[in-house]
Amino acid sequence: MTFGDRGSLRLVSLDHAAWLALCRDAARAAERALTAHPLGDRADQTGARGAGGDRTLQIDADAEQAIIDVFAASGRTCTIVSEERGDVDLGAPVPRLLIDPIDGSLNAKRGTAHHAVSIAVASGGSVGDVEVGYVLDLSTQQEWWATLGGGAFLDGRRLGPQPERRSPDGRLELVAIEATDPRHLALALPVLEDEVRRLRALGAIAVSLCHLAAGAVDAMLTLSNCRPVDAAAAQLLVRETGGLLEWAPGEPLSAVPLDCDPRTSLVAGRSAETLSAVRAAVAHVTAPVRE
Amino acid sequence: MTFGDRGSLRLVSLDHAAWLALCRDAARAAERALTAHPLGDRADQTGARGAGGDRTLQIDADAEQAIIDVFAASGRTCTIVSEERGDVDLGAPVPRLLIDPIDGSLNAKRGTAHHAVSIAVASGGSVGDVEVGYVLDLSTQQEWWATLGGGAFLDGRRLGPQPERRSPDGRLELVAIEATDPRHLALALPVLEDEVRRLRALGAIAVSLCHLAAGAVDAMLTLSNCRPVDAAAAQLLVRETGGLLEWAPGEPLSAVPLDCDPRTSLVAGRSAETLSAVRAAVAHVTAPVRE
Repeated sequence: MTFGDRGSLRLVSLDHAAWLALCRDAARAAERALTAHPLGDRADQTGARGAGGDRTLQIDADAEQAIIDVFAASGRTCTIVSEERGDVDLGAPVPRLLIDPIDGSLNAKRGTAHHAVSIAVASGGSVGDVEVGYVLDLSTQQEWWATLGGGAFLDGRRLGPQPERRSPDGRLELVAIEATDPRHLALALPVLEDEVRRLRALGAIAVSLCHLAAGAVDAMLTLSNCRPVDAAAAQLLVRETGGLLEWAPGEPLSAVPLDCDPRTSLVAGRSAETLSAVRAAVAHVTAPVRE
Repeated sequence: MTFGDRGSLRLVSLDHAAWLALCRDAARAAERALTAHPLGDRADQTGARGAGGDRTLQIDADAEQAIIDVFAASGRTCTIVSEERGDVDLGAPVPRLLIDPIDGSLNAKRGTAHHAVSIAVASGGSVGDVEVGYVLDLSTQQEWWATLGGGAFLDGRRLGPQPERRSPDGRLELVAIEATDPRHLALALPVLEDEVRRLRALGAIAVSLCHLAAGAVDAMLTLSNCRPVDAAAAQLLVRETGGLLEWAPGEPLSAVPLDCDPRTSLVAGRSAETLSAVRAAVAHVTAPVRE
């Protein structure tokens, strides 16, 4: 997928502030769609399977529809790539929007922190083309966003470069893990024991990446496959605060398509050394794994 | 430690509503003390070691002082047992208050969810004597409390009995682990693999117990020692929603002193079967462990 000279096209075509404002409206619409469901019916399924292969929850489908409605009503042309419905053509191939209506669905289903709306706006077809990343944590009401070259923000305050913190014994102080099936964790632990002092497991990939961007944790990894849709928005916050992340070792983000297909584990950190260390923990994941 | 006929004394002496109101005031005072510290200085230490043996952070010391000041100014007599300062005599041996000024200190230091103020008010000297449990999550602003026989509440809404949820393969759907050094986790994983579908690690014992009370997770366990001060308030929320918890197997809470000394792992769940299953994961913890 190519879009001509994206470098110059980007400057002309993507109004970051306008798309950010639309992301905010869309996220609030998704929030209303979610909170319309009392806790007791949040486990209800639509009977369908989403583009990513997961069984679709009604809360995800409703939140996604609410988001699509906001962009469709805006009059701006784009294509929305959604976890639940695949591509939705709103009049133009770009901007290309990748939407996770509820990051942390299981937490949302159980009514607990963290769960978030995640929206990425890209000028092209790869994760490297994302120019606006927006994540609204519906449990803490923290609003995270970044624009390409414009920095990363939490609740309107710019996030500066973050130090990497290690405990006195040299281990990383705090590392977030995602996709925390204990059976996958067992494979990663021999490495994590040497590298990590304390684990956090929030159950929301985008939120964990935002916490890395804010310096709340020192690295982040998914113990099994991670789809571009899970990370497309929040990865921009990590990069705009000087962090690093990758799926396959050495693979540039310009080679990662903006879609919902499972890939390998995602690893993220503040230095190449840390990325390499946590990468070793998931080295057994040699191919995308469906659970 | 005995206080005569605590059963009848309790009815006469402990005004649950009044103590709850004081807990709320004290927690807000602690919040102000914490937020007076910008993120950059939250790792500062006082140079002392608290009653629990941990090195005291300035944020913990300041939050504790703010809490003590509120109770001291209230004119009500009591004794405050604090994580950082031990016993503080405010004119009477009971009520006995057990305070964790910041549950989840590491999260508070890193500026992330979850961290909370935890205050237990007891008519006697054991965890079984706790009559008011109050937890204010400073990251989500969720206010949790319970009174003995009066039920458990989140933001003013009563928490009903919660179902235990299992995935189709029979494993518990969501289990919170605390004290998440990967070296301890490695010992517990062989059991957790068989019993648990997804882990959460919030880094705040009281908050994890509150989430169990609300039905957001199906069990909770600490991978190493847990002090009574960590759990004294939140355990009442678990019990008031029909949950179970214990330190040593079979040990009644009336045998657990209201203090800050490390004990064995704490395990909590909604059924004796679940308690026994997660207990097996930490069976290697035969004695209190200092890290």
